[in-house]
Amino acid sequence: MNYVVPVELHNQIAQAAYEKRGFSSQEATRGARFCEMASWHGIKTHNLLKALHLDELFGSGNTTSPGCVPQAAIIKHPSRFEAAQTWDAQKKLGQAVAFEAMDTAIELADKYGVGIVSVDQAFHYLWGGGYVMDAAKKGYIAYTNCTAALAEVVPFMGKFPTLGTNPHSWGFPTTEAVGFPIVIDWATSTVAMGRVQQFLREGKQLPPNAAVDKEGNPTTDPSKVSSLLPFGAHKGYGLSLINELVGAFIGGSLPTIRSRPQNASHGEKTTPNFFFQVIHPDAMNANAFAVGRNQASNIKAVLNDILGHGNESCLLPGQIEHQAAVASEKAGGLLFTEAELQELQHIAQEAGVALNLPSLATQN
Amino acid sequence: MNYVVPVELHNQIAQAAYEKRGFSSQEATRGARFCEMASWHGIKTHNLLKALHLDELFGSGNTTSPGCVPQAAIIKHPSRFEAAQTWDAQKKLGQAVAFEAMDTAIELADKYGVGIVSVDQAFHYLWGGGYVMDAAKKGYIAYTNCTAALAEVVPFMGKFPTLGTNPHSWGFPTTEAVGFPIVIDWATSTVAMGRVQQFLREGKQLPPNAAVDKEGNPTTDPSKVSSLLPFGAHKGYGLSLINELVGAFIGGSLPTIRSRPQNASHGEKTTPNFFFQVIHPDAMNANAFAVGRNQASNIKAVLNDILGHGNESCLLPGQIEHQAAVASEKAGGLLFTEAELQELQHIAQEAGVALNLPSLATQN
Repeated sequence: MNYVVPVELHNQIAQAAYEKRGFSSQEATRGARFCEMASWHGIKTHNLLKALHLDELFGSGNTTSPGCVPQAAIIKHPSRFEAAQTWDAQKKLGQAVAFEAMDTAIELADKYGVGIVSVDQAFHYLWGGGYVMDAAKKGYIAYTNCTAALAEVVPFMGKFPTLGTNPHSWGFPTTEAVGFPIVIDWATSTVAMGRVQQFLREGKQLPPNAAVDKEGNPTTDPSKVSSLLPFGAHKGYGLSLINELVGAFIGGSLPTIRSRPQNASHGEKTTPNFFFQVIHPDAMNANAFAVGRNQASNIKAVLNDILGHGNESCLLPGQIEHQAAVASEKAGGLLFTEAELQELQHIAQEAGVALNLPSLATQN
Repeated sequence: MNYVVPVELHNQIAQAAYEKRGFSSQEATRGARFCEMASWHGIKTHNLLKALHLDELFGSGNTTSPGCVPQAAIIKHPSRFEAAQTWDAQKKLGQAVAFEAMDTAIELADKYGVGIVSVDQAFHYLWGGGYVMDAAKKGYIAYTNCTAALAEVVPFMGKFPTLGTNPHSWGFPTTEAVGFPIVIDWATSTVAMGRVQQFLREGKQLPPNAAVDKEGNPTTDPSKVSSLLPFGAHKGYGLSLINELVGAFIGGSLPTIRSRPQNASHGEKTTPNFFFQVIHPDAMNANAFAVGRNQASNIKAVLNDILGHGNESCLLPGQIEHQAAVASEKAGGLLFTEAELQELQHIAQEAGVALNLPSLATQN
C-alpha cells in the first residue's frame, strides 16, 4: 500500500527540516523542490529521507568535519572565457548549487549555443538525472557528471577501490517527440553499494563482474563484497575515469580521501566536484531534415525507427521515470510506502510540521 | 615479422591513392595524415588499407550511390550562437571534415572556453580516437561522437538491429601528467562485427551478451551471429542512443537506412552525422588545487592515487596506443605485417608509387 503525500505538504516538511538544520530559506526551497522531483519520478534512492540521511552522515550533520555548510555563498570566479564559468561552492547544499549551475549553463547556451559550469568544493547533489531532466523539460540538451562521495569502485584489472561510482547524466528535450524527456542516467559501477545490501537482505547472489572481495577477487556473494567493479569492463572504467579527470582539472583532489577527511593529510581537499553542460538544440540544427520534417518530428521518426521492426517492447531511458510521474499525477501526490511514511512522519515531527496519517489518501 | 614503412613513403602512397580517386590535394593530405596517425598508434582497424577499402565499398568507389564525394565543399551555416557551428559536409571525405571541425572547435574553445561543431551529411571519419588524441596533444579536452555507418546493434531488450555501433571518443591533455593523452574511445557494442568474423576464423566462441542470432536470441556462436548487442545492457544502449539523438537533432535520418540508400524511400537521407566538442582546460580550472599543486600536477596526483594501492598493473585508456607510438618511434616508421604490406604494395602500385620491399627495414 502507498500513501499519497500532497506535494505542498511534502515540501512544507522538507522546507522546515532543512531550515531546522540551519539552511537558508532559498536553500531549503531548492532542497524541497529537488526531493519533490525525485519522489514524483519514483527515484526512491534520492527522496527526502535519503537526502536528509546523507546530510546527517556526511553533510551539515557531521560535526567533526561537515561536508555541507548551511548558508555558504558560492564564489563565482571571473573568467576570460565567455561561455564557461568556474565556481567554488564552498560546500553549499548540493541541490541548491546544481539548480543554479544548470540555470547558468542554460543562460550561456541561450547566448553561445553551449555553456559549461565547473564546480569545485561541492557537496553531493544526489540525483544528477533530476537536473538534466529539468533542463530537458525546459527545452535544452543537458549533461552533468560529478565525482561520487566515496571511492568504492576498483579500476579495471585492479584490486583496490580508488574510483567513485561516478555517475553520468544526459537529458534530451524530446517531450514533443515522445511525450517525455529522454534521460540517460546511471552510475559507472555495475551495481550500487545499496543494491549489494539489498541482495544480502533478500538472500540473493549478485550478477557476475559486479563486485570483488577483500582480496580483490570477483565474488557474487553479497556478504563477501568489499568493493564494486565498473560496468562493461574497460569501457565503464573509462567512463568512471572521466569524472575523476574532470574533477582533477577543476581542482578536486585524491579520490581515496574524498569525503574521508579523517584519512587526509594536511592541506588536502576531500570534496567532490560537479560539471554541468547545456546545449541549445537550435545550435545543433543544420536545418536540412528529410522529407519536410522539423527537428521534433525528425527525432520522433528516428525513435520510431529504433523502436520499430520488432523492438516495440523496448523502453526509452527516462520512460520509467515518466511512468512514475504519470502515477504521481494520477494519485494527486507523492507516493510513499508505509515504512517510508513512518520515517517521513518522524522528520515532520522533528521539524514541527503536522503530518496527519489518517488524512492521507492511500493506494493499493 | 613487421616491415617498417617510413612515414614519408606511407604518406606519399596515401596521397597518391587518394588523388587517384579524385580527391583534392588537401583532402589527400588529410587522409594520409589520418592513416599515418592510426598506424603510428597501432590502430590497424583504421589504417590506410581499411580507409581505402571503406571508401571503395561505401564512399567514392560506390558508383551507384557514393557516400563520399571527392572535392565536395563544406557549407558552414550562419549561426546566431557564437560558440557553436553547424556544417553541411556534403559527403566530403570524413577525415578532412573531422580535422577541420576539431580545429574549429579548438578556435571556439580558445575564445569561449567551449566550442561545438555539428556536422550533417557526413561520411565515416574512421577512428574518432584519433581526432580527440590530436586535440589533446595540442592541450585541449576533446570529445566526438558519430552515428556509425550501419545499424548493426539491437536495442536493449529488442530483437532487430536499429542502432549503429555508435562510438564515443574523449581525449584529455594529460601528457605533462603521465606522458601521453588519456583517450577513452570505443564503440557501444560489446564487440565489433569485424571481431565476430575474427572469432569465426579462429574457431572461438564469443563472450556472452555480445550478439544475437536471426531470431534475436543471444548466441556465442560466431557463425550464428546476425546482429550485435550493446555493452553493459541498458547503459550501453543509452550511450548508443545518444549518438542517434544527437544525429537526429542535427538532421540525420532513420538509422536503419543509414548507408543503405537502396532501402530508403524518396527524399530520405542516408548519411551519418558527426559531433565535435572542445573545452579549454583553463575554462574548467577553479585555481584552488590542494597543497600547492597546479592543474597538471593535480591530475598526476589523482592518477597516482587511482593507480596506486595495489592497482599498479592497471592501464590508462590511451596507454596501449601510446606504447604503439613508442614502438613506431623506435622502429623509425609505421609497422606493417607481411600480409598488410602486400596490400600496401598493391595500393602503391595502383597509385604509381614505387614501394621497394627489400629496401624496408624489418622487425621481429
